[in-house]
Amino acid sequence: MALANENYFNIQEIYYSNEIEKRVNAYKLLHPAADIIRLTTADVTHPLPKEAIKAIKKAADEMGVAGTFRGYSPAKGYDFLIEKIVKDYRTIGITIDKECVFINSGAKPDLGNIGHILGIDNITAVAEPVCPMYENSIIISGRGGYVTKDNKWSNIVYIPCDSTDDFAPNIPQERVDVVYLCNPNNPTGTVITKSKLKEWVDYAIRHQSIIVYDCAYQGFLSSPDVPKSIYEIKGAKRVAVEIHSYSKCAGFTGLRCGYSVFPAELQVYAKTGEKIALLDLWTKRNANYTNGVPYIIQRAAEALYSKKGQREVDETVSQILSNAALIKETLTSRGLKVWGGVDSPYVWLKVPGRQSSWKFFTHLLYESQVVGIPGNVFGTSGEGYMRLTGFATPDDTQAAVDRLQKVKL
Amino acid sequence: MALANENYFNIQEIYYSNEIEKRVNAYKLLHPAADIIRLTTADVTHPLPKEAIKAIKKAADEMGVAGTFRGYSPAKGYDFLIEKIVKDYRTIGITIDKECVFINSGAKPDLGNIGHILGIDNITAVAEPVCPMYENSIIISGRGGYVTKDNKWSNIVYIPCDSTDDFAPNIPQERVDVVYLCNPNNPTGTVITKSKLKEWVDYAIRHQSIIVYDCAYQGFLSSPDVPKSIYEIKGAKRVAVEIHSYSKCAGFTGLRCGYSVFPAELQVYAKTGEKIALLDLWTKRNANYTNGVPYIIQRAAEALYSKKGQREVDETVSQILSNAALIKETLTSRGLKVWGGVDSPYVWLKVPGRQSSWKFFTHLLYESQVVGIPGNVFGTSGEGYMRLTGFATPDDTQAAVDRLQKVKL
Repeated sequence: MALANENYFNIQEIYYSNEIEKRVNAYKLLHPAADIIRLTTADVTHPLPKEAIKAIKKAADEMGVAGTFRGYSPAKGYDFLIEKIVKDYRTIGITIDKECVFINSGAKPDLGNIGHILGIDNITAVAEPVCPMYENSIIISGRGGYVTKDNKWSNIVYIPCDSTDDFAPNIPQERVDVVYLCNPNNPTGTVITKSKLKEWVDYAIRHQSIIVYDCAYQGFLSSPDVPKSIYEIKGAKRVAVEIHSYSKCAGFTGLRCGYSVFPAELQVYAKTGEKIALLDLWTKRNANYTNGVPYIIQRAAEALYSKKGQREVDETVSQILSNAALIKETLTSRGLKVWGGVDSPYVWLKVPGRQSSWKFFTHLLYESQVVGIPGNVFGTSGEGYMRLTGFATPDDTQAAVDRLQKVKL
Repeated sequence: MALANENYFNIQEIYYSNEIEKRVNAYKLLHPAADIIRLTTADVTHPLPKEAIKAIKKAADEMGVAGTFRGYSPAKGYDFLIEKIVKDYRTIGITIDKECVFINSGAKPDLGNIGHILGIDNITAVAEPVCPMYENSIIISGRGGYVTKDNKWSNIVYIPCDSTDDFAPNIPQERVDVVYLCNPNNPTGTVITKSKLKEWVDYAIRHQSIIVYDCAYQGFLSSPDVPKSIYEIKGAKRVAVEIHSYSKCAGFTGLRCGYSVFPAELQVYAKTGEKIALLDLWTKRNANYTNGVPYIIQRAAEALYSKKGQREVDETVSQILSNAALIKETLTSRGLKVWGGVDSPYVWLKVPGRQSSWKFFTHLLYESQVVGIPGNVFGTSGEGYMRLTGFATPDDTQAAVDRLQKVKL
């Protein structure tokens, strides 16, 4: 009798998006002519950089000719792209060995699959509010423990982040073995400064813990006190995996490419105390579970590092940041408390008065036809907040902002 | 202290290829001018179909324009491709609901990751000789049990396949919960007939087991008594997942695309006896661990179903099969016993006399500079055999065959 992994019974089918769609559809049934603007999306709308398109076409042509055809990619990716990544790190003063870089299919698979190379008994921490996929992947992997009275998981340490500290994740009292950090954070759009991140690295060194550092939004960072990479912090290579994606900054959500760094110095432990490089485990996982990322996609990513490509990426990023800034300004001028929107595409707002997140969601939808994501879908400490994003087109963002200017709050 | 998944300690870093390369390199050091021909490869050498290249370029252009740009793919894939797959099944008389089809990144990730939605206590069977990744993924997932005296895993049932039965996998005496079947088989190149497969489906229904049916080489099948799909067998939708790939037949090893079918009828069990559709678990896994396959790659796969695309796929397949047939004929004419090479790119030969697989590997390398894969790397019952493939170019295959014609056996 084939048994199921029953841990899957404990997660919802697909995040929160179903519930949002259900409510938006109910509104549309009553108001079929309504022009709804979604500031919910974490998907990009800016077309792909022209340099990436050129690279795809060139690579496609190569694939049609016997002399230049390429079969299987190395499981960890082609050197031509890895070398560009290593060079890019060098521009911020970080030396990364190319053996430690793995081309991925975007951040998500690696953020989840890293759980597969870790022991089942690890205690994992997540900052809250948090992207649901971290928690889901911990639960699915059987690392959640049991559900406590307050509807939390016993083996997950939730690090409550709140407005008193601009949503910065503080070091927990207890020992954790693994912690997910996202900088800038999704959903709050807030950042972890160098000094705060140093606390985390020191904590991880002290406890022989590892930090899974989600860098998917790195390209949006510009404030001087915010590190571009965790490896700017001394000792971080001993404790941190850094997971990147080209999705948000280069319009690659539909292309699926990024990279993950597993420094050779980063060791995990057998129960006997024996040490092993996490890099070795990941190399094995990669060889057994993947055949790499498509060649033509890796060429598209490589093109982002050319001068022209970089300029196009910069344009995409600055457009998204302009959108986010516009949303932030508007909400602030309306007297709301707002976070994010500077080093991040996300804008996080305190809903006015004592309304719940869903109540404000409904209010905005019915009164302005603007859709946001209720903060409580990112965990209970997100209750009373909402996430908006700068990913919509400039026209849609402007139209949404015009409505937010007038809507009764 | 971050603990490792210690099951990873129990597998080798990368299959067998390192060992083969080591020995080939040792030969090359002694004979730097040698012209070595590898009939080891499972990678394709035939360029990508022109229709696929056209589709990639068209899709790339769409991605550069705001109106046609596409962000995230649906996690399970685009309908335009899924509908082609459903239609293709219909040509062989099989009705598959499109909700059950998932576009994958080639067969390998799904063949491994399916273990993640199954319970840890399942007993798994593999036919032997076998592609090492099945066994590795069982061990890594903690489903192997312990190593027995004869160097096998206690919770893996090995189904010895041998020459007396043309390497057909026979139903085991004991109950197994999950079984991997590959048709045509890698490495033996032999097939599972309809009547044999019916035995397996009936067995799985009887034991409430599931069959993970690896169809990566389906396109090479033509013998009338061999099913193109396990769903040709009555009742198979209740017990079988079918995993396909465009890699081998369409030259897609460097593009990474295929599809997996999880019929809604296929149920697995909670320990309480409660039933759950495996499809639901896979949908959750997909939503949490992937963001789908690149849009442009899905368009390339769609193009294979056009008339021109199909013709190009047929040409690729027939070239590989011609290579395999040539190798088979040559070896047969030299008096060797040979299997496969008809419905499969793989040729499986009994090494002459009582030599070990590695001994014959060395003999062929030194006497003819032709490289094959020693059969014992596919499990102990592969000892005394060797795998050759039809994937090399026609010129290389001809040159290899000329040498095999003359080499002392």
